[in-house]
Amino acid sequence: MKIILSQQNYIIGDFDFNLSKIKAAIEKAIEAKGELIVFSELCICGYPPRDFLEFHDFISRCNAAINELLPLSQKIGILIGVPEINPKEEGKDLFNAAYLLHEGAIKGKARKTLLPTYDIFDEYRYFEPSYDLSVLEFKGKKLAVTVCEDIWNLHTANKDMPYNPMYRVSPMDELIKQSPDIMINLSASPFDYTHAEDRMAIVKANVKKYQLPMLYCNGVGSQTEVVFDGGSLVFDKNANLIKEGKYFEEDFIEVHLTETGEFTEGILQSERDVPSEELTPPHYDPNLNIDRIYDALVMGIKDYFTKLGFKKATLGASGGVDSALTQALAVAALGKENVHAILMPSQFSSDHSVRDAEQLSINLGNPYDTIAIEPIYDAFMQQLKPHFKDLPFNVAEENIQARSRGNLLMALANKFGYILLNTSNKSELAVGYGTLYGDMAGGISVIGDVYKMQAYRLCEYINEKAGKEIIPQNIIDKAPSAELRPDQKDSDSLPEYMDLDTILYQYIELRKGPKEIMAMGYDEALVSRILKMVNRNEYKRNQFCPIIRVSFKSFGVGRRMPIVGKYLG
Amino acid sequence: MKIILSQQNYIIGDFDFNLSKIKAAIEKAIEAKGELIVFSELCICGYPPRDFLEFHDFISRCNAAINELLPLSQKIGILIGVPEINPKEEGKDLFNAAYLLHEGAIKGKARKTLLPTYDIFDEYRYFEPSYDLSVLEFKGKKLAVTVCEDIWNLHTANKDMPYNPMYRVSPMDELIKQSPDIMINLSASPFDYTHAEDRMAIVKANVKKYQLPMLYCNGVGSQTEVVFDGGSLVFDKNANLIKEGKYFEEDFIEVHLTETGEFTEGILQSERDVPSEELTPPHYDPNLNIDRIYDALVMGIKDYFTKLGFKKATLGASGGVDSALTQALAVAALGKENVHAILMPSQFSSDHSVRDAEQLSINLGNPYDTIAIEPIYDAFMQQLKPHFKDLPFNVAEENIQARSRGNLLMALANKFGYILLNTSNKSELAVGYGTLYGDMAGGISVIGDVYKMQAYRLCEYINEKAGKEIIPQNIIDKAPSAELRPDQKDSDSLPEYMDLDTILYQYIELRKGPKEIMAMGYDEALVSRILKMVNRNEYKRNQFCPIIRVSFKSFGVGRRMPIVGKYLG
Repeated sequence: MKIILSQQNYIIGDFDFNLSKIKAAIEKAIEAKGELIVFSELCICGYPPRDFLEFHDFISRCNAAINELLPLSQKIGILIGVPEINPKEEGKDLFNAAYLLHEGAIKGKARKTLLPTYDIFDEYRYFEPSYDLSVLEFKGKKLAVTVCEDIWNLHTANKDMPYNPMYRVSPMDELIKQSPDIMINLSASPFDYTHAEDRMAIVKANVKKYQLPMLYCNGVGSQTEVVFDGGSLVFDKNANLIKEGKYFEEDFIEVHLTETGEFTEGILQSERDVPSEELTPPHYDPNLNIDRIYDALVMGIKDYFTKLGFKKATLGASGGVDSALTQALAVAALGKENVHAILMPSQFSSDHSVRDAEQLSINLGNPYDTIAIEPIYDAFMQQLKPHFKDLPFNVAEENIQARSRGNLLMALANKFGYILLNTSNKSELAVGYGTLYGDMAGGISVIGDVYKMQAYRLCEYINEKAGKEIIPQNIIDKAPSAELRPDQKDSDSLPEYMDLDTILYQYIELRKGPKEIMAMGYDEALVSRILKMVNRNEYKRNQFCPIIRVSFKSFGVGRRMPIVGKYLG
Repeated sequence: MKIILSQQNYIIGDFDFNLSKIKAAIEKAIEAKGELIVFSELCICGYPPRDFLEFHDFISRCNAAINELLPLSQKIGILIGVPEINPKEEGKDLFNAAYLLHEGAIKGKARKTLLPTYDIFDEYRYFEPSYDLSVLEFKGKKLAVTVCEDIWNLHTANKDMPYNPMYRVSPMDELIKQSPDIMINLSASPFDYTHAEDRMAIVKANVKKYQLPMLYCNGVGSQTEVVFDGGSLVFDKNANLIKEGKYFEEDFIEVHLTETGEFTEGILQSERDVPSEELTPPHYDPNLNIDRIYDALVMGIKDYFTKLGFKKATLGASGGVDSALTQALAVAALGKENVHAILMPSQFSSDHSVRDAEQLSINLGNPYDTIAIEPIYDAFMQQLKPHFKDLPFNVAEENIQARSRGNLLMALANKFGYILLNTSNKSELAVGYGTLYGDMAGGISVIGDVYKMQAYRLCEYINEKAGKEIIPQNIIDKAPSAELRPDQKDSDSLPEYMDLDTILYQYIELRKGPKEIMAMGYDEALVSRILKMVNRNEYKRNQFCPIIRVSFKSFGVGRRMPIVGKYLG
């Protein structure tokens, strides 16, 4: 039996777009003499649809789309993810389901049992878990069909992670009793820079436990902040990898399953196929999987613009490492002609900043302009003078500069239909080292899930990849500064970045408390100071734009903290 | 037996503060010869603690606080809400529990079964539901102790609301089998302007079904956006109301339960005690419960400032109804000396706007200042001229004005330690009629859950309450305008507000789709235009500050929409 996995990039709620993609894949599969085509989780409406799921009208449109696919199922079996109205009076309104379409009808349904409700996931908000598990019959074979999290109950991967809870029910333990021939999982499993190994390990663990071949179909593409990296998988029953979908790209994956449950394709070796014990990095390592982070960020920018129907970006080019990195990523995602860099020097800007920022735009080949902010700053100060009286220069004056820049960038964005790219990194977002409505402005945060030391590594990676200096070495080498007052350096206000990042990683990614972090050898005052800064700046992050998520704990929708609260400070 | 309900206002994560409040109430109860004191849900750490629950250190501090209370339980039984570590290997890490402390020990635990995971609630993110239900024994009585949602499975209230799902399990149906003497529920049940009736109805429905007396202890106080309004309840077994806690205030409620299960107190009549069929308003009514909305907003402002340790507010006073209402509410919450109004006229401001704004501050008695933005706007335009070339005046120039005002207000806030109050209303937030980083700036949105027509009613209520013109009648009477270009009126860009509000209410509060709204008699073009505006402006609301929640569906944490998505447009 020839089976196809369709790894595609959908737009949430764009039923016409999704349906035409799905139909195209089905037609291609029919042409290729496929007997069964498998899609990813909730692909009809795109994942995650969030509260659109609470609109009856939205669900009706999902059903209408399924009905449109039924005629095509005369020629091929279609296994497709869709929200299903719960037919019973009790429980939540919906199931997260996979439908088997064949011979012009819905032949079977597999409903998700394990509903991820942690980090970025809110599935129990919408879906009733299903405990009524049956294999689906297709051409004399029994398919054990599960949806994403349903196979993640095993202890293999991430067993120490508090947000990956253990489940009381194991869907595959039930299904295996019905003697299935093959396991098929429909997923929408998001990227983080260690997740491909997790995913490979959990699929493999299922194959080893149940001794069945397994097809795992993931979605791909970025949905606002959440990046789906593809990497669909096929394992034979001996836990050999047979096929691995492309990462960060759509794919159409064909396999041939023999009557005895073997694949006619050969065995693959993937660099993601590593022992599962090594999966969760217990310490911050700014070098880890930088290439994947780069790919995810480029896709994150590209999809954000494409799906919103925008082409052009602008950003403030300060001559620092964060804006340089953001600019280089934007050029890679959107094309050099579509990135308009704006230099906005003030009386506090150093000559090298302006030179470095210009050189970067020259190296990248994107248009750039320079707008001085001093006259604007002076106009603000003139109007504020009677009110500020003779109070000393402080953060208020610094913020006026940052907000004047934000205003200029937004004015250009509004006038020319650009989206403003935010350039804040995760380290500064963590401690609130940024100006709300100033350098924290933007439609999408490109590197808000990238710590400062990772930002440096990414710059080096970009230059290595190009085989030449794209990002001027001086930008990488010089001491970081916000340049909002004379001779300011980040190190005046912040600890060394390697220490800062390391402590932040323990607190944010691993959710360690102050005592546990101190036990690593950091002194109490430093740890306490950093943790308090993180907690006190929730109000700033709460007003921040979506961040392209590359770690397993990003600020934004996956980390939900009280704004008014006093823990640790 | 004398029982006390302690209805208190906690700070999330401030264990010292919460513990000292709890101890004070216990000591008062001991002095009053109480035998049992009941607190609200998760009062040890404050509700909702959100992702702090994922920190082991945070949970340890909760346990330490319980240990500190044990000695006091020598003299009184204490029933108190606390997160409990799940002792089993399987399931989520925590239970949402109520502990019975007595004779210096933890005598029993009741664990929450029904975990609200809808709207603002994320309980399944953290807690394992408990299906192991037992009454707690106390002084020869059997207490059927439940936590908040556990009693909301009945069909009485809100039965048509899609976000109030029906549950498969009924905790009280289990507990009743053990022949309890009394029902006690520990809640953290938030306010919305129709919720007090819902709550009264559900408590009463439980009493009627199980024919037992019931004590219902709610928390009070505002936690960032979520307002808890108190209103704890005591019903006798015949469903007569015996006590009703204060609304929007702390309370210490004493009742005497006789051996035969009667209360020695008399029967009360509450205006919240209405038939449950009338609970969910199917149509927008801007007059409904305006007095409660007023009280909630005042408490929301007050608690936001107090709990963050701030005293003073600033805001932009435009002479329009939204800023006038916000200013009057702020003066009520913080005192007139703590509200600094800033008038920022431009060349497009009308004379009456400035006069009206001045008159308002004079009526309220708060300090105010005037800062002209024209020189700042001119400085921006001077710098942008070479880039804007000769493109016509459009939204870019309008936004420069709004953002210059935002910058001025934030500069004053930064310089003097004010919090900027945002003045946007729900109608304009819905359709994106506001400038990001401009009039959308602020630390807390006071009226972001108040539709425009409700804002008018609130202004009238304030004047009625005062018995004089606090908000100048001209502010209420004149046609609303953003005054960002000559002779601008809201009605140039928006439908009439009563139509707009009505359609928004159907879409936002009731989650009706376009066809259902058109069936009310609105034409397709209007409905489609409004719904598209709502969907296309998710990106703006995503960067908006917390909104004091007064409706059953507010923008913010309770409404989670994709930013990149194409549903309806």
